[in-house]
Amino acid sequence: MHRILIIGAGKSATYLIDFLADTCSTKDRSLTLVDLNPELAEKRLKSRKNTFAKKLNMEDSENRRRLIRESDVVISMLPALLHPRIAQDCLDLGKHFFSASYESRELRAMRSEIEKKGLLFLNECGLDPGIDHMSAMKIIDEVKTTGEEIISFKSFTGGLLAPESEDNPWKYKFTWNPRNVVLAGKGLSCYVEQSQLKYVPYHQLFRRIEKIHVDGVGHFDGYPNRDSLEYREIYGLKGIPTLLRGTLRREGFCKAWDIFIQLGMTDESLSLSLDQNSSLREFLNSFLPFDPNRTVEEKLSALIPDMDYETFEKIQWLGFFSDRKLPKTKGTPAEILQAILEIDWALDQRDRDMIVMQHLFELKSQSGIRKLTSSLVCIGENSAYTAMAKTVGLPLALAVDLFLDGKIQSKGLQLPVLPEIYVPILQQLEKEGIVFTEKTEKPSLRL
Amino acid sequence: MHRILIIGAGKSATYLIDFLADTCSTKDRSLTLVDLNPELAEKRLKSRKNTFAKKLNMEDSENRRRLIRESDVVISMLPALLHPRIAQDCLDLGKHFFSASYESRELRAMRSEIEKKGLLFLNECGLDPGIDHMSAMKIIDEVKTTGEEIISFKSFTGGLLAPESEDNPWKYKFTWNPRNVVLAGKGLSCYVEQSQLKYVPYHQLFRRIEKIHVDGVGHFDGYPNRDSLEYREIYGLKGIPTLLRGTLRREGFCKAWDIFIQLGMTDESLSLSLDQNSSLREFLNSFLPFDPNRTVEEKLSALIPDMDYETFEKIQWLGFFSDRKLPKTKGTPAEILQAILEIDWALDQRDRDMIVMQHLFELKSQSGIRKLTSSLVCIGENSAYTAMAKTVGLPLALAVDLFLDGKIQSKGLQLPVLPEIYVPILQQLEKEGIVFTEKTEKPSLRL
Repeated sequence: MHRILIIGAGKSATYLIDFLADTCSTKDRSLTLVDLNPELAEKRLKSRKNTFAKKLNMEDSENRRRLIRESDVVISMLPALLHPRIAQDCLDLGKHFFSASYESRELRAMRSEIEKKGLLFLNECGLDPGIDHMSAMKIIDEVKTTGEEIISFKSFTGGLLAPESEDNPWKYKFTWNPRNVVLAGKGLSCYVEQSQLKYVPYHQLFRRIEKIHVDGVGHFDGYPNRDSLEYREIYGLKGIPTLLRGTLRREGFCKAWDIFIQLGMTDESLSLSLDQNSSLREFLNSFLPFDPNRTVEEKLSALIPDMDYETFEKIQWLGFFSDRKLPKTKGTPAEILQAILEIDWALDQRDRDMIVMQHLFELKSQSGIRKLTSSLVCIGENSAYTAMAKTVGLPLALAVDLFLDGKIQSKGLQLPVLPEIYVPILQQLEKEGIVFTEKTEKPSLRL
Repeated sequence: MHRILIIGAGKSATYLIDFLADTCSTKDRSLTLVDLNPELAEKRLKSRKNTFAKKLNMEDSENRRRLIRESDVVISMLPALLHPRIAQDCLDLGKHFFSASYESRELRAMRSEIEKKGLLFLNECGLDPGIDHMSAMKIIDEVKTTGEEIISFKSFTGGLLAPESEDNPWKYKFTWNPRNVVLAGKGLSCYVEQSQLKYVPYHQLFRRIEKIHVDGVGHFDGYPNRDSLEYREIYGLKGIPTLLRGTLRREGFCKAWDIFIQLGMTDESLSLSLDQNSSLREFLNSFLPFDPNRTVEEKLSALIPDMDYETFEKIQWLGFFSDRKLPKTKGTPAEILQAILEIDWALDQRDRDMIVMQHLFELKSQSGIRKLTSSLVCIGENSAYTAMAKTVGLPLALAVDLFLDGKIQSKGLQLPVLPEIYVPILQQLEKEGIVFTEKTEKPSLRL
């Protein structure tokens, strides 16, 4: 009997848990789901056969290691920061490890040890990173057989709202970890465009946008996502002139979000201790230059000369020009901003979220350059069974299922860029309604 | 016999070493100077009586602790990052600790232990922080006796060039640790102006400048320096409406330096690996948006719409529009930028540096508001005996000298804001030519 351990029963794990818990009735498997809150784990498991809910406090390393020792495969759904500790336990105890998070430096340091022990550590097997890699690799591997040269590959993904739920000026609500949304883009992002390396600091990132159109759901802004350069090698596209991975937001979002960045309101280096009665207007004012002769609105307009009405309206809608009291007055600016947004960007029960992904390829052959676009739109069922939870959880669940069935034989530290991994996962995802639509233009002899 | 240990024999320690080494001939003292490079320590000591040069590798904790055990007073001239380790050793071994660096969180955690052991740990006893605190406290304590209320205190300090050495368009060269100059201002700075708290992120910092004029040496730009708010309590000015500590640069410097920040060229989060033949022009281009129809100059102008000719000239003078090869191609953007600047901003042997400090007070009484300005200008002798080394090293040397003579009796974790410390140090600094000039205006009934 194979023993699966899932660590973390949060909102993003619903589909993952359902899929793997269901397999425990039909296959020779057990599933243990652990969380700081064991009642939540219990609720998620719905008393299915061979499933067990338990409590885990990550700091209780004895209990943590005991739970890992008693399993064969470990899936971490905790914040990425905690993965290295779990992965180290898995390495020590000889267990396979799966996650939907980016392969970290700490994990890379374990590579040879993982190989030596014959284990599989599979990361980046969710949505983005995850489905993006798999669907891209399918096209990349197909193109290799046509003899065309991939001269440009741009890939964008967004966790957004279904159009009917876009009922605020931002057309955005939190469908995912709010902290990750508030801090998204920190550091230096990089990509390559027509063989020019490009580095983008955080305070330029939300201005370095590309307009993206997806049939049926409209126009979006895409901004560069972290380090695209390392994927040249991972995708087997070493000399490619243009490679960019990016994140999608609804048109206009980035321009308004950039205001918080310009102001410094996403800072997390300093903890503030503001007056308990401070208003959002005072909070905003504290990031504006002092000028006793100008209003907050005037100072903001002076600081952001290209602010248009749509942007102003977004900031206003959140109450930043009002005397509304701050929901939190102690913490970093980012924490206070997050507390404000968690009120206004909360998903209503009937809201549905939407995942949008688009790959844009330019393929060169003797007949010219052909554009190939592959797009995915996935709409959630409700605020618990979100498209985000589905697209993050199912690839991970499928990978574990295939691995335990012996259909994935690879070992070592892996990403889902191998055909053995991505072909069966993409096939099964199609059955679950996660389907890409391809469009191609005839080659044109431009250049 | 008192045994003094100085850790670090670098450029900034020349005056400190000379002063304390000289006292070893006349007072019952010995001085041990340790450095990774013992020849440098030997050279600095010039074979003076009761002085000893030794080698110390900070990583060799056995040797480090032995050297500290064999001393009574330890002065750290190492980078601030290393102070907590030395301070911890001093605490364990019951030794007094002195530095010119900011009192860190780690040091504050040792506060009660320091008090319990009856030790003195004196930090921020250099120039800025140091002389700024001392000279400010002298005025603040004097004003308390006149019955005036301090309604505004702004204090600016700059490590600059003597006017005759300002022979490049930046009017700047490195007179201090280049790394600190390149990274200056990271994080969120804060101050209070007319009772409004103000927070300034790094990418706005060099735009939030005040014009400062100092008689005889001209006009400067001052930008906010770190956390000014905590000095409300330290200076005994808890309810003060306006308090700002700032850093001075020659007029126009900040506007040009801000371009590197806007571009992301001072980033230290990502290590680049550029082509060995990359030019400065290509390096600059990698931080600009892609646009095949525009030159580097045009793209930069589009990104920085308010760039004037003086600013353009500064960037051009460093070679950023030229095909000059990068002096370094592996490392973070900040490290590569530093390598470029270390060539162009190197101090010539005959260059002299200049320290400028200005305190601006507004004092309120029944007769109105009086402005009081206190300014210091200190010019170095040459590129080894700099004004920077003098103003950083002498206060520290004097504090140790007074302490060993029993004239400073305070114990615990201290800053030089106590009269017992600052009065004798300022008196002695005057004899060394470090003299403030006060100017006051008659009270006016504005407001």
